Amino acid sequence: MRFDQVWNGRNCDKNPTEWFPASVPGNIQYDYSVFHQFEDLNYSDNYKQFLPLEDDHWEYQAVLSYNKEEGERVFFVSGGIDYKYDVIINGEKIYSYEGMFRGFELDLTDNLNGKEDLLTVHIYPHPKSTGGRPNTRDEVDQSCKPPLSYGWDFNPRLLNSGMWEEAYIETRGVSYIGDVEVLAKLSEDLKLGTVTFDFTCELPCETAIYDMDGNPVYRGTDRRVTLEDPNLWWCNGQGVPYLYRWEIKNEKESKSGNLGFRTLRLVRNKRPRLNTFPKGRYDAPITVELNGRRIFAKGTNWVAPALFWGHLDEEIYEEHVRLAYEAHMNMFRMHAGSGRPKRFFYDMCDRYGILLWQEFPLACNNYRATPHYLGVLESEATAMITDFRHHPCLALWCGGNELFNDWSGMDDQSHALRLLNKLCYELDYERPFLYTSPLIGMAHGGYTFYADHQGGETLQSFQKANNTAYPEFGIPSVTNAKLLRKVIPAEEIVFPIPYSKSWIAHHGFDAWGRERWLCQDTLAHYFPKATTLEELVEQSEWLQAEGYRGLFEEMRRQWPYCSMALNWCFNEPWTTVGNNTLLAFPSHKKPSYYTVKSALRPTLFSAKIGKFVWIAGETFEAELWLLNDAPAAAEGKVRATLTLGDETVELLEWSAKTEANDNKQGPTVRFKLPKVDGVDRLTLNLIAENGLENQYVYQYRPTKKVVDLRANNGVE
Amino acid sequence: MRFDQVWNGRNCDKNPTEWFPASVPGNIQYDYSVFHQFEDLNYSDNYKQFLPLEDDHWEYQAVLSYNKEEGERVFFVSGGIDYKYDVIINGEKIYSYEGMFRGFELDLTDNLNGKEDLLTVHIYPHPKSTGGRPNTRDEVDQSCKPPLSYGWDFNPRLLNSGMWEEAYIETRGVSYIGDVEVLAKLSEDLKLGTVTFDFTCELPCETAIYDMDGNPVYRGTDRRVTLEDPNLWWCNGQGVPYLYRWEIKNEKESKSGNLGFRTLRLVRNKRPRLNTFPKGRYDAPITVELNGRRIFAKGTNWVAPALFWGHLDEEIYEEHVRLAYEAHMNMFRMHAGSGRPKRFFYDMCDRYGILLWQEFPLACNNYRATPHYLGVLESEATAMITDFRHHPCLALWCGGNELFNDWSGMDDQSHALRLLNKLCYELDYERPFLYTSPLIGMAHGGYTFYADHQGGETLQSFQKANNTAYPEFGIPSVTNAKLLRKVIPAEEIVFPIPYSKSWIAHHGFDAWGRERWLCQDTLAHYFPKATTLEELVEQSEWLQAEGYRGLFEEMRRQWPYCSMALNWCFNEPWTTVGNNTLLAFPSHKKPSYYTVKSALRPTLFSAKIGKFVWIAGETFEAELWLLNDAPAAAEGKVRATLTLGDETVELLEWSAKTEANDNKQGPTVRFKLPKVDGVDRLTLNLIAENGLENQYVYQYRPTKKVVDLRANNGVE
Repeated sequence: MRFDQVWNGRNCDKNPTEWFPASVPGNIQYDYSVFHQFEDLNYSDNYKQFLPLEDDHWEYQAVLSYNKEEGERVFFVSGGIDYKYDVIINGEKIYSYEGMFRGFELDLTDNLNGKEDLLTVHIYPHPKSTGGRPNTRDEVDQSCKPPLSYGWDFNPRLLNSGMWEEAYIETRGVSYIGDVEVLAKLSEDLKLGTVTFDFTCELPCETAIYDMDGNPVYRGTDRRVTLEDPNLWWCNGQGVPYLYRWEIKNEKESKSGNLGFRTLRLVRNKRPRLNTFPKGRYDAPITVELNGRRIFAKGTNWVAPALFWGHLDEEIYEEHVRLAYEAHMNMFRMHAGSGRPKRFFYDMCDRYGILLWQEFPLACNNYRATPHYLGVLESEATAMITDFRHHPCLALWCGGNELFNDWSGMDDQSHALRLLNKLCYELDYERPFLYTSPLIGMAHGGYTFYADHQGGETLQSFQKANNTAYPEFGIPSVTNAKLLRKVIPAEEIVFPIPYSKSWIAHHGFDAWGRERWLCQDTLAHYFPKATTLEELVEQSEWLQAEGYRGLFEEMRRQWPYCSMALNWCFNEPWTTVGNNTLLAFPSHKKPSYYTVKSALRPTLFSAKIGKFVWIAGETFEAELWLLNDAPAAAEGKVRATLTLGDETVELLEWSAKTEANDNKQGPTVRFKLPKVDGVDRLTLNLIAENGLENQYVYQYRPTKKVVDLRANNGVE
Repeated sequence: MRFDQVWNGRNCDKNPTEWFPASVPGNIQYDYSVFHQFEDLNYSDNYKQFLPLEDDHWEYQAVLSYNKEEGERVFFVSGGIDYKYDVIINGEKIYSYEGMFRGFELDLTDNLNGKEDLLTVHIYPHPKSTGGRPNTRDEVDQSCKPPLSYGWDFNPRLLNSGMWEEAYIETRGVSYIGDVEVLAKLSEDLKLGTVTFDFTCELPCETAIYDMDGNPVYRGTDRRVTLEDPNLWWCNGQGVPYLYRWEIKNEKESKSGNLGFRTLRLVRNKRPRLNTFPKGRYDAPITVELNGRRIFAKGTNWVAPALFWGHLDEEIYEEHVRLAYEAHMNMFRMHAGSGRPKRFFYDMCDRYGILLWQEFPLACNNYRATPHYLGVLESEATAMITDFRHHPCLALWCGGNELFNDWSGMDDQSHALRLLNKLCYELDYERPFLYTSPLIGMAHGGYTFYADHQGGETLQSFQKANNTAYPEFGIPSVTNAKLLRKVIPAEEIVFPIPYSKSWIAHHGFDAWGRERWLCQDTLAHYFPKATTLEELVEQSEWLQAEGYRGLFEEMRRQWPYCSMALNWCFNEPWTTVGNNTLLAFPSHKKPSYYTVKSALRPTLFSAKIGKFVWIAGETFEAELWLLNDAPAAAEGKVRATLTLGDETVELLEWSAKTEANDNKQGPTVRFKLPKVDGVDRLTLNLIAENGLENQYVYQYRPTKKVVDLRANNGVE
C-alpha cells in the first residue's frame, strides 16, 4: 500500500524556523516563492527573485502517516530527488546521494518508533564548479544537473531542486512484487518475440501478456515467454505502435506495464563512394532502420516545458507529445540541456510512436574526468539506462549536446564519454550509442533565417549542404503579441524596441549575440522596420513559417543521403520574446507549427525554390518533387500556378508516382517576373488532391533594396 | 628454475605416425617443411606448398625433462600458442584456448607421474569464417588471427600456427616471485613519479629502483614508491628515453625490468575555426602531447618481418628498430594485419624511444559481433592490454585498420569496437584509444607516385590535402635487382615483363588492381619502357626516393595542422617484386630509406616544389622552408642553386631562424627553364652547414610527352 505524505519545507539558511507547505512532487524553491508571495515569475525580470536562493540549504519534513499490517515493512520510495541530499529518519541519516535521476527504496522499518516518526530530506546548495565564468553554464561542468537551468539562450537562470519525482511511503508484505523489469526482444528476422520477466516476490506469481484488445496471448508462470510472429511496434507514420500489456500478479497484488517488439539499428546513410586519396573515414551511421526498414527521422528537439520541473504533470507532457504526433513527427531529440523528463513521458512516447534520441546531461561544456564527477555520472547514467531500456520508443543514447565543438572542448578521448559508451554497452547492448551530436557527416544550425556570418540565407545554404542528418536547425520568430504583452511591461513596448531589462531577460537581446532572438538584424534584411508589435510578429512569423517549411522539405528531398531532420526546438520553458520554437509557452501553436505539420505529411508535392526574395525581371524557378516517406507507394497529379498580386498564371501539370519511402524529382517550372510597383507576395500553388497540395508564400519586389512603402524611405 | 624441452611435432591428418623435430619458439608448419624438404619458400610460387596444410591438425609432444626440489611445483609456461589448441598432460586435457596472444601458466604437478611425463599441445586447423570470398582475408573476420597471413597485397597466403612464443617447464618453490606487474605513473605536472609493485611471493621481498647508471634511487620493501622530479622518458629526437630499472628480489630469486615516466595524451590539432552553418564536429584528436609537449609524430608502419613469426628473434627485431631510430623516426604504427610482435620488441622500443601505435588484430573486414568472436576478442585484447600497458613506448591502442571504410563496413556502432573501448577504459584508463584509422580529419593513401583515378601525382595531391594525420601513405618501388633475381626464375625476367606465376606470386600483378606493385602504368607516365631489370628498378627507385622525401617534408610543412606522418610501410615479410617499403626483405635499405632519413632530420632546409616533371619554357618554382621539430630553436643559412645538366645557376641565399618545434616559411625561388634536347635531371640544391642541407632530383624534359631517346619513339 502506498501512502502520500504531508510535507513541509524550510530554507535552512534564510528562515530556519519558518515552515511552509511543500508539494511533492514539486520544487522547494517554488513552494517557498508561493509562501513568500513572489511576484509573477514570468513577468519582466522577476525570475531574478530566485537568484539569492541558489546557495541555500533546504529541508522537507513529514510526520509519517501510514497503516501497516503485521509483518509488513515500511519503505520510503522516491523516483529521484534533485540534486544532492540526505535522507534522515528520526534524526538518523540513512542515505546520502548526489544526482536527480536515480530513484531509491529505503527500508525505514528498523528506524521507526511507530508514534511520531519524522522523515527529513535535507538538500544541499546547487553544485557550482569554479574556474569558468561565474553565473553561467560553466558552473555545471562537474555535475549531472541539467545544464539549462544554469542559464541558456532561451532559459533564464533558475536553479531548482527538491522532490521532483513522486515520493511516498509504501508498506510491503510477502505479496509485494519488487525489482520488476520486463524486457522484450525481437529476433533479427522479426519472427520471434521474447519476453523476460524479472522480479522478486515471496509468493508464487502469475505472468501474463495481453494484446492491444485485452486478449491474453500468454498466461502462466514462466519468466521467459516467446511469441511467434508478434505484432511489431512502429513509429508514427510507419505503422501501429503496437503495445502488448504484461502483468505479474499474485493473490493480493499485481504490477503491469507495456511492452513492444521492434528492432532498431543505426545504419550508414546511402552516400556516393569516393575514390580519391588521401582518403578519410566514411560518415557515422545515423539512418534509423526500424524493423529492417530505413526511415526518415523527422521531428524536433524537446526541452523541459517549464522552469519548475517538479510540477509538470501528465497532462502537460501529453499535450506536447500529441501535438508532435499530429504534426507527423516520429522523433524527439531529448536534448541534454533538459536532463530527462518524468518517467511517464516515456510511456506516452511508446503509445504515440515517437522515437526518442535520449541524451545524458552533458551539454556545451568540457566535463572534466575528475573521480567525483565520473562517480556521479556513472551512477546517474546507470539509473537512466536501467530505468528506460525497456521502452520500445527509446531509439538511442547520446552522450550529450555539441561536445565535439569549439565551445565545449571534449573529444573522442574524453573519459566521461568513454565511460558512457562502456555503460551503454554493458547495460543496453543492442541500443545505439552516440558520443555526441553532431558526429561526422551530421551538422547543427543555422539558427536564423538570414545571417551574413553564417553563409547568408539558410534556405539557400541548406540546398548546398550535404549532410547525413540535421539534429538541430532553427528559424526564430518573435512571440505572439498577446502572449508577449503578458511578460513585457507596456512601457517597454515602444519602437524602436529598447535594449531594456525585460526584453533582455526574455532573450530578446544578448541571448546569442546582441541581436538574438528578436533578430531585428534579420528582419531588416527583408522588411522595413516594424512600428507595432503586431507587425514585428507578423514579419518574423512569416519568415519562420516559410523557413521551416523550406528546410524540412529540403532535407526530405535529400533522402537517402540525408535521413534526419529535427528542428531546434519544439517548445520552451517560459515565454521568450523570440525563439526557434514551434510552440510558444506553454503550448501555443505558432504559424510555423502548421507549415512544419504540412512539410512532414507522409506524402506531398514539394517545390525546391532557390531563395526567398524575387526581384522583378528575374526568372522565378521551382523544381517540383513528390515526397513520400510512407511505407507504401504513392502517386498524384499536381497543377502548379503562380500568384503575383491579384493575378494567377498557370505553370504546368505533372503526374508522378513513387515507391514506398522514396521521392520523385520532377520538372522545373520557370516564369519571368514582370515589373511590380511595391513589395508584394509571390505564391507558388501546388494544387493537388488527396492532401498532397502545397503552397509557398515568398517575397516579390521591384529592387534588391528593402523599400518601406509607408515612409518612402529605403532601408538597406 | 626454467627447463627448455625437446619437442617433436606431427601432422595428425597427413602423417599421424611420423614425428619430426619441432623448434620452440617456432611454427609447426615450418618444422614440417624442413623435415619434408620443401622447396625454397621464397622462390617463384613455392609458398603454395603450404596451402594443402591449412586445414590440418598438428601436435607437439615432449617427454618432460626437469629437476625439481622438494616442495616445488611444476608449471608449463607459455607466452602464447597460435591459435586454437588443447594442452594435454599424460593423456588428460587440462587447458583449451583460442587465441595466440594470451600466455598461460599451468600447474602440472598433480598430473605428473614423475617418470615419463608426456606433454602434448594439440593444435586445431586455422579458423575460416564462411560467407565471404574463400581463400581470402574474408575468412579471418571471426577470429583474432593476424589478418595478413590470410593473404594481403604484399603478403602471400601462408597460415602458420604453433608455439610461436617461448614455452618452458618451470619449477617454483616458496621463493618464486609471480604475477609481477610494475607500473609507473607520472603526475600531470611532471613532478612526481609513482611506481607500484604488484607481485606475489611467499617469502619477504625487497623492491628497488635503479637509475640508468645503476645507482639505486630506492631500496626497501615498499610496494608503492614515489620519486620526486624523476627523469622523463622521451621519444627519439625529443630527449633521452630515460629508463629506470626495477627489481624485486628475495634470498633466492629476483625479477627485474624497465620503467619510464611520461605523460601522453592525444590532443586536437591546431586547425582554424570555421564559423559557417550547418556546422559539423571538429576533428578527432591525433596530435601526440608527450610530457606536455606537442610533437610531430614521424615514422612508419611496421609489419611482421617474416612469414614464419615463431622464428623471429631479438636480433631481427632490433635491426628494424635500430634502422627506424637512425632514420629519426619516433613512431611505429603496429598495423593490425600483423597482430603483435613478440614481447621483447616492446622492451626495445622503450630503449630506442620509438612510440607505438598498437592495433588490435582487426583489419579491412567487418568483424561481426557473434558471441563466440566477442568472447575471443575480449580474452585476447585483455591479454594484450595487461601484458603491455607498463611500457612507456606504448602510445595508444587502436581497434584496427581501415574499419570505417567501404572495404570493411564497421562503424561507430560496431560492438567489437565498443567492447575494445570498454576494455581499454577499464584496464588502461590513461592511454588513448582509437576505434580505427583513419578517423575524422585523418587520411590514408595514396599508394602510388602517380595514378589517374587517385587524383594525379601524389606529390601534388598532398600539397592540396589538409588532413590532421597521415597514418598511411606509400610510394612503391621495384625491388633491388639482385634480391629480385633470387626469387624470380631467370626465364621470367624478360621484357615486357610477363604476367607470369612468379611475378604474380610476388605481388607484381593483381596484388591491388592489375598493375600493382610493379606499377608499370605509373612508370610509363614518366619514363620510356625499361628494357632491363636494372633500368626498371632505377626508374622506380627514383620515384620512390623523391616521392617519399617530398611527402614527408610536405606533411612536416603542414605542422601544426598536421601532426603525424607514417608511411606505408617500413618492411616486408618476404621478397616482394615491388612494395611501398623502405626496407626490402629482410632489411635491405632502398634509396628511399635514405631520403626518408634525410626528410626526418630534426632540422633541415626544405623546398616545396609543385610537381616532379618540369618542361622547358616553364618557370621552375620552389618555396623554401626551414623545418624544425627539435625541442630547441634552430637557425641556419641556405644557398639555393639549380643544376640543369652540367650547368648550375645560383638562385638566392636565405638566413632563417625558428623556435623549438616550429617551422619557418621562406622565399619562393623562380627560374625560367631554357630549352633542353633530351630528358635530363633538374636538381635543386639547398646548400647549408651543420647538416641542414637538402637536394631534390626531379625531371626536366623538352615536351609533356615521354620521349624514349634510345628508340626515338614517343610513348605517352
